[in-house]
Amino acid sequence: MRLGMRIALSLRSWRNFVPLIGVLTHYRRHDLSHDLLAGLVVGMVTIPQAVAYAYLAGVPPQSGLYACLLPMVIYAIFGSSKQMVVGPVAVAALLVAATVSEYAPKYSDAYLAITSVLCLQIAGILWLLRLSQMGGLVNLLSHPVITGFVNAAAILIIVSQLPGLSGIALGDAESPLADLANLIGAVDQLEPLTLAFGLSTLAFLVASKRIIAKCLTLIGVEETQDHPATRTGPMLAAVISIILVSFLGLNGNLQTVGFVPAGLPTLVWPNFDLALWLNLMPAAAIIAIITYVESYSIGTTLAAKQQTRINPHQELFALGAANMGAAITGAYPVAGSFSRSSVNYSAGARTPLSSLFCALVVVLTLTFLTGLFANLPKAVLAAIVIVSVIGLIDFKSSRKHWSVYRHDSWTELATMSLVLIFGVEVGLLAGVGISIALFIRSSSQPNITQVGRLDDSEHFRSVKRFEVTTYPNILALRVDENIFFANATQIEDRLLRRALRRKDTKHLVVVCSSVNMIDATGLMMLYRLNSHLAEANISLSLSDVKGPLMKQLSNTDITQSISGEVFFNTDQAIKQLAPNSQLADQPHENT
Amino acid sequence: MRLGMRIALSLRSWRNFVPLIGVLTHYRRHDLSHDLLAGLVVGMVTIPQAVAYAYLAGVPPQSGLYACLLPMVIYAIFGSSKQMVVGPVAVAALLVAATVSEYAPKYSDAYLAITSVLCLQIAGILWLLRLSQMGGLVNLLSHPVITGFVNAAAILIIVSQLPGLSGIALGDAESPLADLANLIGAVDQLEPLTLAFGLSTLAFLVASKRIIAKCLTLIGVEETQDHPATRTGPMLAAVISIILVSFLGLNGNLQTVGFVPAGLPTLVWPNFDLALWLNLMPAAAIIAIITYVESYSIGTTLAAKQQTRINPHQELFALGAANMGAAITGAYPVAGSFSRSSVNYSAGARTPLSSLFCALVVVLTLTFLTGLFANLPKAVLAAIVIVSVIGLIDFKSSRKHWSVYRHDSWTELATMSLVLIFGVEVGLLAGVGISIALFIRSSSQPNITQVGRLDDSEHFRSVKRFEVTTYPNILALRVDENIFFANATQIEDRLLRRALRRKDTKHLVVVCSSVNMIDATGLMMLYRLNSHLAEANISLSLSDVKGPLMKQLSNTDITQSISGEVFFNTDQAIKQLAPNSQLADQPHENT
Repeated sequence: MRLGMRIALSLRSWRNFVPLIGVLTHYRRHDLSHDLLAGLVVGMVTIPQAVAYAYLAGVPPQSGLYACLLPMVIYAIFGSSKQMVVGPVAVAALLVAATVSEYAPKYSDAYLAITSVLCLQIAGILWLLRLSQMGGLVNLLSHPVITGFVNAAAILIIVSQLPGLSGIALGDAESPLADLANLIGAVDQLEPLTLAFGLSTLAFLVASKRIIAKCLTLIGVEETQDHPATRTGPMLAAVISIILVSFLGLNGNLQTVGFVPAGLPTLVWPNFDLALWLNLMPAAAIIAIITYVESYSIGTTLAAKQQTRINPHQELFALGAANMGAAITGAYPVAGSFSRSSVNYSAGARTPLSSLFCALVVVLTLTFLTGLFANLPKAVLAAIVIVSVIGLIDFKSSRKHWSVYRHDSWTELATMSLVLIFGVEVGLLAGVGISIALFIRSSSQPNITQVGRLDDSEHFRSVKRFEVTTYPNILALRVDENIFFANATQIEDRLLRRALRRKDTKHLVVVCSSVNMIDATGLMMLYRLNSHLAEANISLSLSDVKGPLMKQLSNTDITQSISGEVFFNTDQAIKQLAPNSQLADQPHENT
Repeated sequence: MRLGMRIALSLRSWRNFVPLIGVLTHYRRHDLSHDLLAGLVVGMVTIPQAVAYAYLAGVPPQSGLYACLLPMVIYAIFGSSKQMVVGPVAVAALLVAATVSEYAPKYSDAYLAITSVLCLQIAGILWLLRLSQMGGLVNLLSHPVITGFVNAAAILIIVSQLPGLSGIALGDAESPLADLANLIGAVDQLEPLTLAFGLSTLAFLVASKRIIAKCLTLIGVEETQDHPATRTGPMLAAVISIILVSFLGLNGNLQTVGFVPAGLPTLVWPNFDLALWLNLMPAAAIIAIITYVESYSIGTTLAAKQQTRINPHQELFALGAANMGAAITGAYPVAGSFSRSSVNYSAGARTPLSSLFCALVVVLTLTFLTGLFANLPKAVLAAIVIVSVIGLIDFKSSRKHWSVYRHDSWTELATMSLVLIFGVEVGLLAGVGISIALFIRSSSQPNITQVGRLDDSEHFRSVKRFEVTTYPNILALRVDENIFFANATQIEDRLLRRALRRKDTKHLVVVCSSVNMIDATGLMMLYRLNSHLAEANISLSLSDVKGPLMKQLSNTDITQSISGEVFFNTDQAIKQLAPNSQLADQPHENT
């Protein structure tokens, strides 16, 4: 009995830890065809993307494919999202290139070794966040900061692909603007054939959804709008361009991928150079946080569509494990891919098994099809990257909310500009700093509203917005903010001024319905306010103090120290403080 | 007519700018005796303190007296506080010594020249804060940070006086702990006579209030408790020790102040060495902010006792001007003095004229009495400093609020330790950082409470704390926090989980009575929450949205986008959403 229970318990905790066990024990046979189809479709989308992002990250093409192997399988085992596909993504590739290219030339063995160290560090940081339960830290990246960062990253990625698209070779420049200038300066080195391939792929990809949907309609498929096959444009473009290059013999006139070693990755062990580790640490922390934020948001969106939840702790662990897998297989940092995850979802994936089938497609490709890449033009890959990241750019929300959320729009613009000019670390840190500063600033200028009785009800509302009854000897002021160090002095000042300015005031009632927290600085302020008011013969009362706050305050002696009382609500405060109950019901002019 | 009005107007604006004009035009003859007495008493307190703090600051004794001359007069002219006394203070002296001693040996001419530059920079920073209306920035120094800092400063000051008290000469050490260790190591160099003077002065000063009060009673004075004469202990100690040293001829065996040049200060112009200016800037900013915070809090406390207010803008200007006065007269940075201001107040000062009389005492001292300082033992000054700053140490509030405000207590302890170990800049910045981090952290874990109808009233309160009526198909959740980037994801998660967990829920009403602000991240969250709930056939409504927030939200399309409605209050939401009005009044079990 006890043993059985123990096994049941340990099985249960194993299931929490390895969600795939739960998936497999409840697996229904008819899910299989769905997962298989989805896995194949995602595989078709994955392969050209993986090779294209490998160039963006500065690693050889096979590393891109390796990133879709062990990491993807590991996430399928440990991840709490049923449809999220983990693997190479554009933003992480950009960050890897920006970091590692400072230490070694791109595509070199040394570069790849450093990338492995980076993967290991990312895994370590994600696990550390998991162990210390600090995953909530990522919430400091506000929506405007993320939007600004992603916009900047997309612009950087697009600029980085222009040389590949046009055939113009560029040295390393300091900034995307300098890159653009160099590009325009070297316009005479443009290779017409490369540009022709690049631009026609761009044009095809932009129109591919509609083209493929039309073809599907022609062959009698219904509901072509979001058919998964419409996402196979990149694969089609790759196949068509390989055929063109091979049959027209263009591989001498055009940069192509060239030799890609066949076979599965061998295990590698990252080297331990302490100085390098310390140098990479800040970049690793940023990539880890970005990885987690993006993956978590993809996972949540997909889970919500099925009214399920994902487990943030488990996600931290699973993403860490996936990056550990990347570290030991010569791949590069992985994250949840928005495009491939949505293809997976819309192709009907039911369980993480679809990721396993996708990995199988990658294995088959690595085993039998690497020869095909020899004639794949790099310009086509550049076009694939550009079209993938154009969808990331979002200026709409900033424009839309400009009038209401000007602060947030400024934060977004500032983050974007700082990332573009000073790089990702500075830009993101500054963005977080600006978010916090603006929040503290807005909290430090609270609304303080005089409230009065609404008709004969027990409701008290702002005298400015409603026809309410006030009482000459009672001033009821609602403080619309937590009372804490950044605003305590100002609140004290304004409460005192308004109480002293209004001649007949005998009682000040501070309505705390919107006060969720009073810190030590706020408490000191209340003591001071009380004694200052007492010197003017005005009593200080509180009303509508919420449960948790009341519990906290009753551990101090403020409730006994104030000259007035703590009332359950404003209605009771008025009833008790008004000179007599007759008077209390007579309306008075607002003051 | 127009000219008269113009003069009246300009006189009025001049009066705002130069409060002393207003004071003098309304001056009543019988105020004069009060101000004169207070000025004399404050002068008696000021002179020994000024000389003692000069040694602490590392400047010659006359500089301490100069700091009570032009700066004090300037503040009396421009300051908005009627009783605050500006001049040398212990904490600023400590900060000056810590800063300037890195660039020149103490008591040298070069040291004094650098101190003048520091005064000038402090003046500039205070004026900049005034011009940019950024005085509110100082609110970032929360109560725990200030308390922690002042405690650490007091400890540093006391340790710095131990050599003077004991006659042990010490080199510059890195930390107060090292200083203490060196002191104990050099205990054989102790000068018994110095220590005897030091310790007996300490003992006398600690008991001086009671001793003087008793003497006053003996000579028939009533109400001796807070009699201003009880504050003249330091002056008495100085006079008695000068008499002892002179008559017993001890000045060969004892370190004394020695030669102090007679006469008023001459004007000096600070030099402009750009590198030095840049190096001093961070310290100047910190001294300026501490100066303002301390002075403002003294001014507010005194003003409140007379039910008046002080003007923060004018204070910034006046303190800046006072420091400018210090810069050009070879003095050192000045601030409002807590001890001398309260002596001034309790001695009955009515107007800033008392400061002018106090300055007169200083002028007379500088002109006729500098010879007396020759035999004033430094050990007596050390004892005066120690007793002055012991009163600054405050561990009570931290102990008192430990159980309720543990975060704040930790912030206080951390600030104190960091100031002691790493110095003032690091300690204060870290303290502000910790305050902000803890505030963001507490805001990121909001209370979300289910509310129900209280009896038959229109009030809705927590189901956990009150016997309330809830409705099976409506879940009313009150979010007790602003909805912003640091908590949006968590609020989304918890609202969604609670709505899905409760089986019959058809309507989720988010009660916003405690929400004062929703930022762009929060708004995005509401859109997402709405669509996630819609997939589970649950409508999303808001209630009790306050005026300013409603105004902001109505500029977005969230009010139209949500599947439910925005209700005026929870009562109306329930009445409309409950299946029919009969059912709405039937109580149900809490869920």
